[in-house]
This record gives sequence, structure tokens and C-alpha cells, in this order.
Amino acid sequence: MNEKSIKLTSQILKYARNYLEANNYTEVITPRVVRASGACENIDTLFEVSAQGEQKWFNKKRGYLCQTGQLYLEALIPKLGNVYCVGPSFRAEPRVDDRHLTEFQMLEIELPTDFDGLLHEIENIIESMALGLIGNVAKTKELGLTSEDVKRLKSLPIQFARINYDEAIKLLNKFGCQKEWGDDINAAEEQKIVEHFGGQPVFITRFPDPMWKFKKEIEVEKFFNMLPDKENPGRVLSADLILPYGGEAVGAAARVHEPETMIRRLKNSKMFKRLVQKGGNLNDFGWYIEQMKTNGSVPHAGCGIGLARVVKWLLGKSDIRNCVAFASNKESLI
Amino acid sequence: MNEKSIKLTSQILKYARNYLEANNYTEVITPRVVRASGACENIDTLFEVSAQGEQKWFNKKRGYLCQTGQLYLEALIPKLGNVYCVGPSFRAEPRVDDRHLTEFQMLEIELPTDFDGLLHEIENIIESMALGLIGNVAKTKELGLTSEDVKRLKSLPIQFARINYDEAIKLLNKFGCQKEWGDDINAAEEQKIVEHFGGQPVFITRFPDPMWKFKKEIEVEKFFNMLPDKENPGRVLSADLILPYGGEAVGAAARVHEPETMIRRLKNSKMFKRLVQKGGNLNDFGWYIEQMKTNGSVPHAGCGIGLARVVKWLLGKSDIRNCVAFASNKESLI
Repeated sequence: MNEKSIKLTSQILKYARNYLEANNYTEVITPRVVRASGACENIDTLFEVSAQGEQKWFNKKRGYLCQTGQLYLEALIPKLGNVYCVGPSFRAEPRVDDRHLTEFQMLEIELPTDFDGLLHEIENIIESMALGLIGNVAKTKELGLTSEDVKRLKSLPIQFARINYDEAIKLLNKFGCQKEWGDDINAAEEQKIVEHFGGQPVFITRFPDPMWKFKKEIEVEKFFNMLPDKENPGRVLSADLILPYGGEAVGAAARVHEPETMIRRLKNSKMFKRLVQKGGNLNDFGWYIEQMKTNGSVPHAGCGIGLARVVKWLLGKSDIRNCVAFASNKESLI
Repeated sequence: MNEKSIKLTSQILKYARNYLEANNYTEVITPRVVRASGACENIDTLFEVSAQGEQKWFNKKRGYLCQTGQLYLEALIPKLGNVYCVGPSFRAEPRVDDRHLTEFQMLEIELPTDFDGLLHEIENIIESMALGLIGNVAKTKELGLTSEDVKRLKSLPIQFARINYDEAIKLLNKFGCQKEWGDDINAAEEQKIVEHFGGQPVFITRFPDPMWKFKKEIEVEKFFNMLPDKENPGRVLSADLILPYGGEAVGAAARVHEPETMIRRLKNSKMFKRLVQKGGNLNDFGWYIEQMKTNGSVPHAGCGIGLARVVKWLLGKSDIRNCVAFASNKESLI
């Protein structure tokens, strides 16, 4: 337990909420025990929930711990416009290291905007956190920020650097990383890109579309509901925000809002194929499909911001376990 | 999905946070997958968490879904003073009715104060929600409040009525309820008490101490960590806030802060005995005992406020499922 990190987290949540409130967002309490519609791409890391000795306690259905509230927020956009939620995301991640937790707080937003509008919104939220902090000089020390940290945050550009995935792979090869197109970009490589852009946050954009027919199987895999980029066939309108120290702190994308396309992409996703192997089926998403058809849908986009990784960035810390009140991983449960 | 309830919940959360922030509270992100130290008195309604086919995925330990963040907040008081958390509380409640959900949002506070200070703090928080709402006349309609609701909230007294458990049992007998001392007070009876006090919120205080040696087994059972009332042997310094429509919306108590007494009461609680039957032991609370001994402890008190029940009150609704964005119970999981 690091009380400075706790206080700092409390502050940045406040600054982010102030921004969201001033920009007409409605906070939504999304469920945390869910059907597979609360899974992100990492379906193998879903926790299952049982009670009174029954694995299918909920009306003979399997309950999972939520990894993302994305679809629950998306379903509300037609009625509520800009929406957000803050709550735990759970991953049964076997790795015990300085970057992974089995439970972490995520701030998720969904709003009727396009891809560029979304990136702008992410900049605004991240900046509202950083500027809120350094705006109160007396408090920065109390919260554990060194003068070095403050200096770094003061030079935060209003617009973050953007590099698309194709360019990022080329850049990494220039650095001698021997990457092939379609490979995942690991944490060390992400930091090389950050250094290349002056040690400031960088958006890596337009990742390969896992559902496009390439000549090879690609490693990169993302949530099924990302909008293909019409101008760049085989790429989706997605972005990861990479922070110095923090690493991948935000996963973002424009979403598919047309029901038939959404269903087709869902069915073709690796995530769905793994769900079917586990005994799931399209009914897990039935409520969402129903919502789309009943309430309609509008073009929209959204993201999830991992708060502990933002704290890691703000405090320049190397271990995520020092960035949260209670750190949990496979070897540590309290 | 009731969008008015969602908007109203978003608003009252904001008003409550504004109050807490103005009163030096630090928001804490408490874990939601926990050892048995996250259980309240209803240990039979604990959900268990498994992953990759292992029931004891966490280093050979059982993981449960949190019912209360109380101990996690209590542990931080010596370092942080006033603390709060907002997040889901999970109960594997088999009853499917208009009062129970398997997952509900709870606002919990813990602070260095005494029992009277705590009741005052609860009044302040509940009032900050109600006054915030009716303070914006134009918005009340948009949020679903009828003029009848607004009238009811405008007559909310600054100090809520208080009746102790012994008096409440006598009163219910006067109403012909045939209650014996030690019985639980059910939802219908709670509303009779509310009516007796003019249809406004009522604190029922000083419940029987389940660890006191009475001549009979008592029904009333509460979280183990409640402070015995020195002036009323056999009673604890606890309170339930009963709201019209909402029912029991807040459970509150002064806590035991002396480690040996806390451990003794824990070991003697029915909750702990049931935990042992399930294969648990004192190690589930080891981290908390260690914290108490390392960081010390101070007299303190706290409570949990069930947001959906507050919404039920504000909107005068009879069914809790209409008071949340996504209602979950044994028969409904999305």
C-alpha cells in the first residue's frame, strides 16, 4: 500500500470526472458479473463465477467477471449520448510481473464521434489529469511527484504524437528489432517508439484487421467490434496510447454500429471461436444485438483507460504494484 | 434499462462525491476479488471465482467476490484519515424479487469518528444527494421526479428520526406484529416504522450483539466488527437507515479498533464459524490483522450505502430492478 499513489489516483479520478461532467457525459454503473459479452479479446483470461457449488448458478448460464464494460456503454449511446463507467476489469493473467495485475481500475468512455474525435477526447482526458496535478504546486510533492516528474508533465504536448502500425513496424526494424508486419509490438518496443518521440505519449494507430484475409496468420488481435478503415484496407480504426513508464494505457477504436456487420465480425473473431469451444454461443450477445435492433445505433467510438498505468506514467514508476492501493496477481490475493 | 434512473444515479453520485471531497475524504480503489476478508455476515451468499478450470487459482487460495470493502478501508484510516470507495457488492442471493439484486453499487465510508458522528455523516451524505437533486428544479422532471417526490424530499428533516432496536420491537408489537426481542425486523415492518415517523428516513440503532450470551439464540446477525455499546450491555453501536420505498439502504456501525478484541469477536462470529466449515481460517484475515499491528489503529466508524435503494426512495419506486442500468439476479444475467 502506497498512500501517495492512493491519493494521486483519487485526484486524477476527480480531474477526469470533472472533464467528463463538463462535457455532458453520463456515468453508468455497468455490471461486473456478466455473460461473455463482457469479455475482451483475451477470453482465455476470463474468470468464472460460481455460487453454492454450482458453476452455472445463474439460471443454468455461466457467469464471468467483466473485462470491459464497452458493449454495456455502447448499448446506451442512442438514449444517453456520451457515457462513461469506472470500475474493475478482471484478467486471470498468470504472469506475475511489474506490468500486470489480475484486477485493475478502468475508466471507459463511449460517445457518438469519429476516430479523430475519439483521439482528441483521449488527449483531453489524459491532459485533464496531468494538468490538474501540476496545477497545484504545493500538492505535487505531497502526492509523490518529483520536480523531474513535474518538468516532464509540463512539457506534455497538447496533441500527442501519432504513428500508424505500418510505420511503427518500419521504425522498429530501423532500430534493429527484426519485426514482421502482423507481429505484436511488445512493451520494450513500445518504449523505443516513445523515446523516438521525445519521451512523450504516442498513439499507435490503425492496427491490422484480424478479420481481413491476409496471406499469413497475424499475431495482433483486438476486440471484435472495431471499425475497418475504409482508406486503408486490412486495417481498423483503432489506437493504443503508449505512455512513458506506463506502457499501453489506453485501447481505443471507432466501433461498428451496423448490426449485421457487427454480428458477422463477432462470429468471425478468434475470441468468439474460443468462446464456442468453451460452450458459449451467440446468445451471450443476444441482449446487445436486441438492443441494437430495438433502440437503433449511431456511429460512435470509445476507449478504456487503465488508471494504474496512468499513475505509473505520472509518478515515473517501474512497478505497477506500487501504483495501486491493493495489488492483486496470481500470487497475491488479499 | 431505465434512462431516467441512470441519469439520476449519475447525479447523486456526483453530489455525494462533492460532499466527500469537500470533507477531506480520499477515494480508494478497493479490491473486488478477495479472500474472505471481503465477506459481510452473509457468507453463504459469497460468489467464488475460478479460472482456467482451477477453483483455487490464486496461489492455491479460494478467491471470492467482495461483499464489502469495509476492512480494506479500515486498514487505511491510520494513514489517510477519512476514506471512501464506490463499487459493486456481490451477493449470491437466490431470491428473485423487487428488493434484491445479485450485484449492486455501494458507497462505503470509514472515518475516525464516534457513533453519533457517523450518523451525522450519513445524514449529510443522504441530504447532499436529495438537496442536490431538488436544487435544480428544471432537472428534476428530466430525471423522473414527480412533483409529489419533490414535495416529499423538500420536507426531509435535517436530523433523521432515531429509534433503538429495543424500542422498535416494542413499537412493532403495539402495531400487532408479535415480535420477540432478538427477531429480525423484516421489510414490511421497517415500513411500518417509517410510517410511524411521518414517512421519512429512520435510523434503527443499537441492535443486539450477536456475541453476547443471551438466554436464547438471536436472529439478528451483523458484521463481526461492530463496537459493543458500553451503556447498553448486549447491544452494539450499529444502525440501519430505513428509507421510505427504499427500505434498509445503509448499514452502519462504530468499529472495534483494538486488535485482540477484534480477533476475539471475529473468531466468535457465526460468519467465521461458517467460513471454517467451508475450509477457510484466520489467515483469510491475516493481512488485516498485520496492518492493525503494524500501522496501529484509531477509534473509527463507517457504513455502506446501497445506491439503488437510495434511488428507489428518491423516485418512489416499488421495484429495485427499475432503479439500475442493468439489473442482475439469479434469473437474469447479461
